[in-house]
Amino acid sequence: MRNIKLTIQYDGTNYHGFQIQSIDKEPTIQGILEQKLTQITKEPIKIIGAGRTDAGVHAKGQVVNFYTNCQIPIERFVRAVNSVLPLDIVSTVAEEATEDFHACYSATGKQYTYTLYYSKIPPLFERDYTLFIPYKLDLSLMQQAANHLLGKHDFTSFRSSGSSVISSVRTLNKLDIIDESPIIKMTFQADGFLYNMVRIITGTLLQVGRGRITPNQVKQILEARNRKQAGPTALAKGLCLEQVIY
Amino acid sequence: MRNIKLTIQYDGTNYHGFQIQSIDKEPTIQGILEQKLTQITKEPIKIIGAGRTDAGVHAKGQVVNFYTNCQIPIERFVRAVNSVLPLDIVSTVAEEATEDFHACYSATGKQYTYTLYYSKIPPLFERDYTLFIPYKLDLSLMQQAANHLLGKHDFTSFRSSGSSVISSVRTLNKLDIIDESPIIKMTFQADGFLYNMVRIITGTLLQVGRGRITPNQVKQILEARNRKQAGPTALAKGLCLEQVIY
Repeated sequence: MRNIKLTIQYDGTNYHGFQIQSIDKEPTIQGILEQKLTQITKEPIKIIGAGRTDAGVHAKGQVVNFYTNCQIPIERFVRAVNSVLPLDIVSTVAEEATEDFHACYSATGKQYTYTLYYSKIPPLFERDYTLFIPYKLDLSLMQQAANHLLGKHDFTSFRSSGSSVISSVRTLNKLDIIDESPIIKMTFQADGFLYNMVRIITGTLLQVGRGRITPNQVKQILEARNRKQAGPTALAKGLCLEQVIY
Repeated sequence: MRNIKLTIQYDGTNYHGFQIQSIDKEPTIQGILEQKLTQITKEPIKIIGAGRTDAGVHAKGQVVNFYTNCQIPIERFVRAVNSVLPLDIVSTVAEEATEDFHACYSATGKQYTYTLYYSKIPPLFERDYTLFIPYKLDLSLMQQAANHLLGKHDFTSFRSSGSSVISSVRTLNKLDIIDESPIIKMTFQADGFLYNMVRIITGTLLQVGRGRITPNQVKQILEARNRKQAGPTALAKGLCLEQVIY
């Protein structure tokens, strides 16, 4: 049996997140993918996703895998899938994976971006993909705070409840804040992320940028291992799963 | 009476073009702007637009003007307007204009872009703003053909019927094709444009890029002054009014 690894992009705006909910509910990325892959392979397809993005979260490099006996040559797979997918989901790469490849468990890391639109004028073409920040931010304070989060830590303070994962220790390898005015791109790379971790860190760093908490307090928030000490969860639409690392 | 000059951006996807049609029809940019300006000024507002973009065409630098006795300070105008506009229309600049300023007649030129998405993979985040070109193009042939169109010419061959403007002579000052793979941006600057001129030129240059007509034939098409000799009208969604020059 073939194990196909598919890299996909999606605009999460009109989806109720990645994970399938139930047949009658809002559309999900997984639901649409399984339906369309079933259609082109003529087999009932179940996919495994690298990460379950929430409603409104986007992806440029989500990875899924699935088993099939279909005969579609691998070099024609991307075109075949894209010909049936809606315009807000696109497959970019299809590869034959080894039998034991698992999109989620084989991953050694992930990269997300959180994108701000830092201007007095609201975003137009970027409105579904950025968080509008019309107030003043101190980006260097935000980067100082971000640096306190680098490395291996218990990120309980930056984790929403609602996940079954037990350990809350993760290694954050990168947290860069890049100013491409009016776009500010925050890049997060870690061996894995807790539920809402990027969005809560972003919400907390925005409080730092506004001068409401200091970079040192972010260190204390991390050490407190208490979600209530951190800032609010930033809106979903600024978040994008950029890459899954294997 | 004040004459306010407003620069606006819009995503044309969900509008039936710039120009107001009738109260009962699809929403138009002009219709929404007049309704919202009437709301904030508490006066019945009629606007004059620099150019009437078609359904699905976007703008980053459309200009309108209107007369009002309202007392809103000019420095608060942009925020006031944006607070009531839908998310797909944004005002970027408000200025007090001289009494005789007319957004359309005072313009000495305009700049449009037509954007292609040149890749085997369809555009995702750019899907409403680009024309997907999955086939091979020869960009240098396209630029050669474009150069034949530069200067002052009768552009009858690149004009759709349905406009009341009499002269079809225009001066095309710039037609640059810039490769920022997978984005290809075609920039058009002229003293004015005929109805569908950018889209018909684009449709014709795409035929050149595919090798179906030669750059020299484009010169002959121009000289023929016959719409039937030119290529098809490229889709609206790739077109954007970038700037009105005064």
